[in-house]
Amino acid sequence: MEFAYLGPRGTFTEAALRRLPAAKTATAAPMSSIFEVLDAVRRGEVDAGFVPIENSQEGTVTITVDELVGGDPLVIVGEVVLPVTFVLASEKPVAEITTVASMPVALAQVRKYLRRELPNAVVHQALSTAQAAQRAADGEFDAAVCPPFAAEAVGLPVQAFDIGDNPNAATRFVHVVRPTAPPEPTGNDITSLVVYIDYDRVGALLGVLTEFAIRGINLTRIESRPTGEGLGRYAFFLDCTGHLADARMGEALMGLRRICDDVRYLGSYPRDHSDAPVPPPAGLSDADFADAAAWLDRLRGTGA
Amino acid sequence: MEFAYLGPRGTFTEAALRRLPAAKTATAAPMSSIFEVLDAVRRGEVDAGFVPIENSQEGTVTITVDELVGGDPLVIVGEVVLPVTFVLASEKPVAEITTVASMPVALAQVRKYLRRELPNAVVHQALSTAQAAQRAADGEFDAAVCPPFAAEAVGLPVQAFDIGDNPNAATRFVHVVRPTAPPEPTGNDITSLVVYIDYDRVGALLGVLTEFAIRGINLTRIESRPTGEGLGRYAFFLDCTGHLADARMGEALMGLRRICDDVRYLGSYPRDHSDAPVPPPAGLSDADFADAAAWLDRLRGTGA
Amino acid sequence: MEFAYLGPRGTFTEAALRRLPAAKTATAAPMSSIFEVLDAVRRGEVDAGFVPIENSQEGTVTITVDELVGGDPLVIVGEVVLPVTFVLASEKPVAEITTVASMPVALAQVRKYLRRELPNAVVHQALSTAQAAQRAADGEFDAAVCPPFAAEAVGLPVQAFDIGDNPNAATRFVHVVRPTAPPEPTGNDITSLVVYIDYDRVGALLGVLTEFAIRGINLTRIESRPTGEGLGRYAFFLDCTGHLADARMGEALMGLRRICDDVRYLGSYPRDHSDAPVPPPAGLSDADFADAAAWLDRLRGTGA
Amino acid sequence: MEFAYLGPRGTFTEAALRRLPAAKTATAAPMSSIFEVLDAVRRGEVDAGFVPIENSQEGTVTITVDELVGGDPLVIVGEVVLPVTFVLASEKPVAEITTVASMPVALAQVRKYLRRELPNAVVHQALSTAQAAQRAADGEFDAAVCPPFAAEAVGLPVQAFDIGDNPNAATRFVHVVRPTAPPEPTGNDITSLVVYIDYDRVGALLGVLTEFAIRGINLTRIESRPTGEGLGRYAFFLDCTGHLADARMGEALMGLRRICDDVRYLGSYPRDHSDAPVPPPAGLSDADFADAAAWLDRLRGTGA
Repeated sequence: MEFAYLGPRGTFTEAALRRLPAAKTATAAPMSSIFEVLDAVRRGEVDAGFVPIENSQEGTVTITVDELVGGDPLVIVGEVVLPVTFVLASEKPVAEITTVASMPVALAQVRKYLRRELPNAVVHQALSTAQAAQRAADGEFDAAVCPPFAAEAVGLPVQAFDIGDNPNAATRFVHVVRPTAPPEPTGNDITSLVVYIDYDRVGALLGVLTEFAIRGINLTRIESRPTGEGLGRYAFFLDCTGHLADARMGEALMGLRRICDDVRYLGSYPRDHSDAPVPPPAGLSDADFADAAAWLDRLRGTGA
Repeated sequence: MEFAYLGPRGTFTEAALRRLPAAKTATAAPMSSIFEVLDAVRRGEVDAGFVPIENSQEGTVTITVDELVGGDPLVIVGEVVLPVTFVLASEKPVAEITTVASMPVALAQVRKYLRRELPNAVVHQALSTAQAAQRAADGEFDAAVCPPFAAEAVGLPVQAFDIGDNPNAATRFVHVVRPTAPPEPTGNDITSLVVYIDYDRVGALLGVLTEFAIRGINLTRIESRPTGEGLGRYAFFLDCTGHLADARMGEALMGLRRICDDVRYLGSYPRDHSDAPVPPPAGLSDADFADAAAWLDRLRGTGA
Repeated sequence: MEFAYLGPRGTFTEAALRRLPAAKTATAAPMSSIFEVLDAVRRGEVDAGFVPIENSQEGTVTITVDELVGGDPLVIVGEVVLPVTFVLASEKPVAEITTVASMPVALAQVRKYLRRELPNAVVHQALSTAQAAQRAADGEFDAAVCPPFAAEAVGLPVQAFDIGDNPNAATRFVHVVRPTAPPEPTGNDITSLVVYIDYDRVGALLGVLTEFAIRGINLTRIESRPTGEGLGRYAFFLDCTGHLADARMGEALMGLRRICDDVRYLGSYPRDHSDAPVPPPAGLSDADFADAAAWLDRLRGTGA
Repeated sequence: MEFAYLGPRGTFTEAALRRLPAAKTATAAPMSSIFEVLDAVRRGEVDAGFVPIENSQEGTVTITVDELVGGDPLVIVGEVVLPVTFVLASEKPVAEITTVASMPVALAQVRKYLRRELPNAVVHQALSTAQAAQRAADGEFDAAVCPPFAAEAVGLPVQAFDIGDNPNAATRFVHVVRPTAPPEPTGNDITSLVVYIDYDRVGALLGVLTEFAIRGINLTRIESRPTGEGLGRYAFFLDCTGHLADARMGEALMGLRRICDDVRYLGSYPRDHSDAPVPPPAGLSDADFADAAAWLDRLRGTGA
């Protein structure tokens, strides 16, 4: 089995991929953009792709979502949530550092640390944390802000660990494949969707959420985006608790199919970092749905 | 085919029964109470029963509804809505009438007429309009307030027609049988239900109505009654637009089955006085449900 | 202070009136119909009226509700819920009774008793339980089915107590006056309303219930009735938990005022048989509303 | 009046600022990060700030939103929506270009163009489009992908206009100030909020949307983000149609204040590119709210 992932080697994506059970015995090819990863999956050059989809600093990785929504269908069959940690990598002790480099997003995440510990250092921008580490190792700058494995890769000592301002920072990655039936339900799954509705009708979004709420399905993520097809038409990216195979999820999806302009299914897959399976609310188990269906059949057949 | 109906002969119930297509060629036996009619159906002594269930003056005929809800199941397979009209039946012209009789409910419906036209007449109560007509024909009172056919039955002339205060007064009757599949959908049907919910949970009724509203089903009647089983437990009598065979009604009923303490189906039948069939709202036809189910099957099977 | 009530003396209504705190020291005049009671209040001939509004056997007393809804406004300022009990009143022991009389509604409530204990007795209809008792005392019938006080009033011994089929049978009476501010909140109050909506718009009733549900207000009674003004226009009689003075009730009422075709306020008053006051749900106390209003004022004034 | 904006000069932000009516006669100081712009406003060094908040390629500018949500309050008082267009700037005709540079986000937006017209060119990353244009003007690369004004600023000819893949691409910028009352309503305004709710309770988001939907308020943007404060607690960024001064918006905000864990108001301001004012739905105008409030006052005072 072969994975393509967003490279280069030595980034958070590769670190996350190592945690994916399905990738344990797979070969993994770094590619230079999310587009290339997903195209390689679509064309069948690899079996699976692995790309970031959301991070706590920048929110949704729009390129990933847009690629999943447009073009030939792909489905998500797994996720990895990786804590994001930064180090200050340098040959010099902190007190002697006068220049520091990193990519803008990483600098934004250590802003408070730099202001407090290196208030007089000159800050330089680099294209990636790996590049910053390399340039610091080459002596172009005194220090780099980068993940631990990037410092290790270039042989730079770490002067300070966990310097990120947000101790809960994390990035979420997804394992995508060509369309296929979802993995077996685990009792703690996510289903990802994109729905298209017309905002000019008051309450269209309320209608979508009602389909979930009456069936005890929670949303763990929602994000609207204009579709670019004219005023008032919106797409919503939704992550819902539950699995495509659940009776209640099935009925909710059928409801969306009927009331939305369009629905695109992006996959059902186990939650990473999930605790014990969450039982469905009272009256909403598969057995409850089966009981109700049998009752309806009896009514239609015999009236009692 | 034999019908039992609430007698005696010469009442609104018999007049209504004559309008029921299914009773055209049937024999019809009057009985002295709603209980007896329904018991005769339950015991198989007759094929069908015909009783009042709701009228515009007094609201629900609670005895009928309670009998349908309790005891062995019966289902409604038809309805007749009969306009209620009263006449002043007397041998004397209005100006000479000094005593008038009727049953209390009928007197309440002609109160304004009596106040205006017979302000000085003495009003007497009788047990039924038929009894009042008979006693007026016998000379016990000058006049009776009764339906036209009751005056005719005892040979009393009519001095004034349509003397009811409410020109829209009507009574609704139902045709009930032992449990059986409902009659074919006509596109303009009613489904009658009783649902039991617990009022202590805020929004339980809202949950019930949501099951209908998201599927474009209207209620034409709703009435709560305490169940007598303790504080906070209520039964709701509901008449809904649509037929048991409709996909959207089926899904709504299954939803109620899951969220309510109990649901009792009372029948699906054609609306009386209905106009042309009412098409389901956009996205809620049987074809829309079939499309959504096929789509879900595809997703579950192949992910696309 | 003078009350008018639905007579005659010796009925459930008089028994209920005796339980109303506000009537303790009042004089009370029986009248022969609900119309007369309410008209006497409207014309100022009495200070207050007392009439039945709902009973567990027959449901809503439609005449009362229709009178409160039509004509000059009246408001409810109190209620009494009276358990309904029937006795078998007779000079003879049960085994010797061959004829029994009562009004039809009372007979319906003791049907199972009569079938079990007096299966061979001939049953006669009377216009009221008081009349039945009088005629039994006069020897016209062997026995009467009536409330205990009616037997007592005519001096008939009681052969069997509590013969009603439903041990929870009760009637609800209301204390009405000309429009005035409601009595002080007790923490366990009812607010009665009539709202008019158009059923042709799917979800109109859902909109009404949403106004209550989002503010933690329960309904203890709901009943629809056609308005007689044309197809699809309905009135709903609602009893809601809470008081007109509550902030959340006020906001809900204003919401109804805006979305309904019409709203008629029928009064706020203490619940009879209420337990300890029920605190409002989290976030919905008057203090919560005051906090939110103060916050909005600050935003509008200074943006923070 | 002095504005700070996200520099450097010659970017989309400066182009957008020139369109803001309030900035017509203001001085404008470019700053090197969103943090610096907003801090300068907070500290009172400038009167106003101007920063990007959302773009059609990358979605929300999370840094801006996080800064508005955390730290000392700021409010949005205006917005500008600027179409995003890219050009191919080069001294050479397209056929002769072998190297092209731009920042990664810009390259992503012209991917299809490059694949079609320059399939063999080597692509280089730069830190900004302005830097790419400068380096192309310096001869380091043959061409730059940049906005028209960036090409103009360095004197590079444009070889191809409007090369972006999405013709509707746009960026939204906001004008922020220290807390103050909002600008006057125009009839076509946006109110921006952040609300915090607990996802563990099914339907919490539904409750938030219901507050808007029942008052005819649409959402034009919604985005959830984990708060980092533990599982299940989410923040929602919302843009709503309407103004803080509207009665219906005020009532909706008060409702959110009561039901959400927290609500942060981010400002009410005129929509850019708005058409004629949009009247409120039936029953939801300020006059309707005033009527309802007056009616409630009458009921509370006199019962009628």
